[in-house]
Amino acid sequence: MSGSWSGLNYFPGKNKQLQAANREIVEKSTTAVIGGGSWGTAIVKILSEAPGGYPVSWWMRNQDQINHIVKFGRNPWYLSSVDLDVDRKHISNDLRKVISGAETLIFSVPAAFLKDALKDIRPEDLQGKRVVSAIKGFVPDDNMIVGEFFNKEFGVPFSRLAVVTGPCHAEEVALEKLSYLTIASKNRTLARSIGALFSARYIHVNVSDDIYGTEYAAVLKNIFAIASGICHGLGYGDNFQAVLIANAIQEIKRFVDAVHPIDRDIKESAYLGDLLVTAYSQFSRNRTFGNMIGKGYSVKSAQMEMNMIAEGYFAVKCLYEINRQYGISMPICEAVYAILYKNNSPAAEIRALSGKLK
Amino acid sequence: MSGSWSGLNYFPGKNKQLQAANREIVEKSTTAVIGGGSWGTAIVKILSEAPGGYPVSWWMRNQDQINHIVKFGRNPWYLSSVDLDVDRKHISNDLRKVISGAETLIFSVPAAFLKDALKDIRPEDLQGKRVVSAIKGFVPDDNMIVGEFFNKEFGVPFSRLAVVTGPCHAEEVALEKLSYLTIASKNRTLARSIGALFSARYIHVNVSDDIYGTEYAAVLKNIFAIASGICHGLGYGDNFQAVLIANAIQEIKRFVDAVHPIDRDIKESAYLGDLLVTAYSQFSRNRTFGNMIGKGYSVKSAQMEMNMIAEGYFAVKCLYEINRQYGISMPICEAVYAILYKNNSPAAEIRALSGKLK
Repeated sequence: MSGSWSGLNYFPGKNKQLQAANREIVEKSTTAVIGGGSWGTAIVKILSEAPGGYPVSWWMRNQDQINHIVKFGRNPWYLSSVDLDVDRKHISNDLRKVISGAETLIFSVPAAFLKDALKDIRPEDLQGKRVVSAIKGFVPDDNMIVGEFFNKEFGVPFSRLAVVTGPCHAEEVALEKLSYLTIASKNRTLARSIGALFSARYIHVNVSDDIYGTEYAAVLKNIFAIASGICHGLGYGDNFQAVLIANAIQEIKRFVDAVHPIDRDIKESAYLGDLLVTAYSQFSRNRTFGNMIGKGYSVKSAQMEMNMIAEGYFAVKCLYEINRQYGISMPICEAVYAILYKNNSPAAEIRALSGKLK
Repeated sequence: MSGSWSGLNYFPGKNKQLQAANREIVEKSTTAVIGGGSWGTAIVKILSEAPGGYPVSWWMRNQDQINHIVKFGRNPWYLSSVDLDVDRKHISNDLRKVISGAETLIFSVPAAFLKDALKDIRPEDLQGKRVVSAIKGFVPDDNMIVGEFFNKEFGVPFSRLAVVTGPCHAEEVALEKLSYLTIASKNRTLARSIGALFSARYIHVNVSDDIYGTEYAAVLKNIFAIASGICHGLGYGDNFQAVLIANAIQEIKRFVDAVHPIDRDIKESAYLGDLLVTAYSQFSRNRTFGNMIGKGYSVKSAQMEMNMIAEGYFAVKCLYEINRQYGISMPICEAVYAILYKNNSPAAEIRALSGKLK
């Protein structure tokens, strides 16, 4: 189901495996990172510090942000303490140019803005390229995960599609804290090649063939992080939180097993670990957003106050619509949906939910 | 595998089920709680507030502690803010007297002291009584879980044995935060009867027939909480912590499936939830102990500083011995054992461990 190998410095014994994976990439082709947010910035840091030394190009929309990075080597808005060792002539707000000059494209824009970012890109622009989703969200309207979206809308074959998931907060990459990433693809050779790009000293890479399951789990976890925040905001304690999260991973398993039934162990890092880091961590935007809702903020005022997108807010709506056709029992997600979209009382919804949990 | 029902106030729709369970207890027999620590105190609070109104008696060793509780209705040493509505004439340091006057015995002394506490008790003293373990630890020397110990050493049949597990920090019971307990017994009628005793307003009871698995999981979680604390103390972050805990539940599953192979879902609250509340919570002694080890305290100085027993310290030694006959892959437990008992460097052990995790 999944294998693993790691960056050089942490695990010197595994060099050979890594070098073999590196050799699969015949030439040192350019990797483009699409998106200038915190996760995109963390990925640029990882790629530019991985032992292969592959060139990295970077797209972001805002020219002021680009100018700042070109001048100071730091992203002014995200992970601003990180020195970015990226070739400054390779940062651009011209997406077609960035895409055309790269073999591997790593997308890291918010799911809600993906279609807008791609509006001038045609399927032929992506032809022959390896497309990696580092996005954790559904594509709105289409209610598709990002890999599926590139396959259906841009004709990218699954043999050239991969997904990168955590558990990994960008903030801890900035601090070079040891973190584990999972690269999932139906094409295991591709997964290993992409893995080699990510093998910085403080990164451990797992590979998986479950592109659907890892991506769905990465999206759903944000909904449960909101639930976790709501309960905390309402005054529920650690005892309840533990029950909530134990039930959440069961909900994730029911969903991914129904939507993409393959043999998988939901307790692996890419599923359970990713849920834990999001639901329990201080860095989680989604948990913070939920906490404000639990404390009595309206959805609108919580969003204004945070000045950030809690991706679970969009995800729960898409999930609600997707689940119409499956009818999977997902009481936690249903409670979050009712609180955020039907304006139901958080206290009443969570109290009713608590009777359904075990 | 498991069912559930709950205290009256939270889940009024479930009254009938609860009343039926209550009727199984023909007379309002006395329940004895053996142990005056924080979990024993929390149990006394729960039992004395459950809707049935059954009499509770209480054993603890220390006469000063008893005098304080008799005089002020509060335990001077544990959860001292809790008003204990317990009949004061039913608190005693005479274990034989307490046991002889009760139908149901709930044991909540540290596992390390259980044999000493029971030294004057003979098998016939427990004859016909229902024995419930609320202890989370192996019985030293024998390396048995507590249920097994009462069965083998005192001849208590499994039809009269039950185990109560969390996820449940005593501190949150003191605060009346909604908490879920699991009562496990091979005798489902017994589990439901014991569940009725625990059905206070802020307690939700699950029942299970997995007496071995729930008790082993409750013991093992303390070892992983020490591991979690060690990693935190060494400076590993939330990303790594999530990987550690995802791997920990896999380790628990491998162990309980080998030792007692029945069909169980390790993601249920009694297993995964109990691990989460211990590994992630601020209230966990074991995590605090591990944190001190990670920061460089010696085992001895950490124990002196804390002035409390971290049960995982004893558990990992027993586990190590039990696992000799099974040879189950448990790299996290092995690392904790090597750090605590072989005086190995925490930094080196965790670095080596990180290469084994996925």
